[in-house]
Amino acid sequence: MKIDFEKQDLLDAINIALKAVPSRTTMTILECIMIDARGDTILFTTNDTELGIETTVKGRIIEGGSIAVEAKFFADIARKMPEGTIHFQSDENYRITITSGSALFHIQGQDGEDFPFIPEIEKNICLELSQLTLRDMIRQTIFSTADGESNKIMSGELFEVRDNVLRLIALDGHRIAIRRVELASECDNIRSVIPGKTLAEIGRILNGGIEDMVQVYFEDSYVMFEFDRTIVVSRLIDGDYFDVDRMIAPNYTTKVKLDKNMFLNCIDRATLMTRESDRKPIILEIGEDIMKVRIQSIAGSLNDSLEIEKEGQDMKIAFNPKFFLDALRAIDDESITLYLINQKAPCTIRDEANSYLYLLLPVNFVDM
Amino acid sequence: MKIDFEKQDLLDAINIALKAVPSRTTMTILECIMIDARGDTILFTTNDTELGIETTVKGRIIEGGSIAVEAKFFADIARKMPEGTIHFQSDENYRITITSGSALFHIQGQDGEDFPFIPEIEKNICLELSQLTLRDMIRQTIFSTADGESNKIMSGELFEVRDNVLRLIALDGHRIAIRRVELASECDNIRSVIPGKTLAEIGRILNGGIEDMVQVYFEDSYVMFEFDRTIVVSRLIDGDYFDVDRMIAPNYTTKVKLDKNMFLNCIDRATLMTRESDRKPIILEIGEDIMKVRIQSIAGSLNDSLEIEKEGQDMKIAFNPKFFLDALRAIDDESITLYLINQKAPCTIRDEANSYLYLLLPVNFVDM
Repeated sequence: MKIDFEKQDLLDAINIALKAVPSRTTMTILECIMIDARGDTILFTTNDTELGIETTVKGRIIEGGSIAVEAKFFADIARKMPEGTIHFQSDENYRITITSGSALFHIQGQDGEDFPFIPEIEKNICLELSQLTLRDMIRQTIFSTADGESNKIMSGELFEVRDNVLRLIALDGHRIAIRRVELASECDNIRSVIPGKTLAEIGRILNGGIEDMVQVYFEDSYVMFEFDRTIVVSRLIDGDYFDVDRMIAPNYTTKVKLDKNMFLNCIDRATLMTRESDRKPIILEIGEDIMKVRIQSIAGSLNDSLEIEKEGQDMKIAFNPKFFLDALRAIDDESITLYLINQKAPCTIRDEANSYLYLLLPVNFVDM
Repeated sequence: MKIDFEKQDLLDAINIALKAVPSRTTMTILECIMIDARGDTILFTTNDTELGIETTVKGRIIEGGSIAVEAKFFADIARKMPEGTIHFQSDENYRITITSGSALFHIQGQDGEDFPFIPEIEKNICLELSQLTLRDMIRQTIFSTADGESNKIMSGELFEVRDNVLRLIALDGHRIAIRRVELASECDNIRSVIPGKTLAEIGRILNGGIEDMVQVYFEDSYVMFEFDRTIVVSRLIDGDYFDVDRMIAPNYTTKVKLDKNMFLNCIDRATLMTRESDRKPIILEIGEDIMKVRIQSIAGSLNDSLEIEKEGQDMKIAFNPKFFLDALRAIDDESITLYLINQKAPCTIRDEANSYLYLLLPVNFVDM
């Protein structure tokens, strides 16, 4: 095999492929990038058995072939090569020569016979949305997934299409995060659970704007994302996802409108009082035009107050400040609205257009 | 005690003081900043028993006093406070109130009775140089100090003044780094060993330019640096430092002039071949107008060649690539000159003006 790459094209492709290279594995072949050059197409494939990435690389094939090369080592070599054209060559013993300028590397590749290739996905049920939208929706929900140790399905996100509306839903038993967007094109209904890890990696690889699209294809056990020169294939998580809409009460007794950044900074300060051994809640005391905020722990106490616009009853309610912080950081609006029922019922933060909804369970607190 | 600080002034002072707060200690009082407000001077003092820092803070004293406050917690609170004036107040039970805008923190301070104050240093033997120069000299030598486990004195740097010439010298048994500068003002001779850790922290705190000066005072067991609003006091390391000048041969048989960045990039590539278990040397093969560079390990091999200007004999010699990398990164010149004697003798890299000298011991290698 003999291929010429421009350094930047090679680096771009390696950086995408690296996202599906496991950091620890007993199968050393998974630490490799599989390079295939056939016809006029160069493919880099990586696969950690849950998640597979295949990206088409710009380059000039002088002689076709295929070889597996240790991904991180190859990435380091490519990064440290002089600028310009990089010549990549391998012989029948999978000995690789990489040259550029006066530098000449010899390293050992593998035949890649036992490399687990990515399953072919039929391009049936498909939806299309902008890369920017998908990336934002992932960022704005991913933090609400659970680590999956106690409940596998909670480590994923529900990817739901109903009547051409896409919702991404994550929950961890203490909170729910929902992002909603209306699709521009017709799409069949979908209800699949995608692993959180897959979505996190997709979020890292997608770097297109609002004009650059991503296609998403579903099969029984797999989902495939296709964008730019790359496809990402992931297993789906089996099982029925929660009926989230039944968990969200439509009514409320208290509605509080306030400045997001003021509230965010205030809670950020409050988290200084939560130390490992002493996770005290933040107590909100909602009055007429003022919401008092306080937290007290062995470390000390913080008292603060914020101007609010309130409808309904006064209320005292307590939360894990970290959950509030995550939700507020995911909201881009400058002004937010909280909907509350009572001290024991979940609080929701949502906008008029229903483009987002965050639900947080309150915690018990000792009133002082 | 009652003081008003502007947020930025407070943060600047805390960030300097933090440099002498140990990360792990059994004496919890060392984790504190000691705050003293007397007359119209506010002092923040920290001390890890090797290194002490005292910095004068801008602020308005409404009521004097002194208190010790946990440094990292105080830093976090100050950082997360709203912009503007921060009101700091403590009562007779060392209860601290910190307010700004609507935010009000209560935290517990300490009397600081057992806080180890910084020794008074007589301002006798003094030298003065620009902050920029001192910072550069530290950066360009500090990497050659040893960790001090086998030999305490090697963990420090020799601070030597002779005939109004200052030299900073570091060595670790495999290499020597020397930086030299002529002092603008008269100065007594000095020969003291300053702990590497002290110099590293000084390098981090100094942020003045070529016009901003630092004064250095020596006593038998202490050194004090004074600059801007801050003094740093450190113990010196006891014992006689090595006679470095006797280790450096003035003669050479081969002199090689080459482009520093080309060489640096080449060695940087070579370090890819050195893995934890397999520290292979880099072999230099000095010919007429070309220096061949090669390294071979279980990971693979790199061959490279560089254009050089050579005087004297051809030579083959091998080095630890990391030591070369450190030295080359510390040199700002675009062109460098290597002086060599034979395969077993040290190589020196130095400029005509003697402003720097790096000496590297070669290593054995198997010729192929």
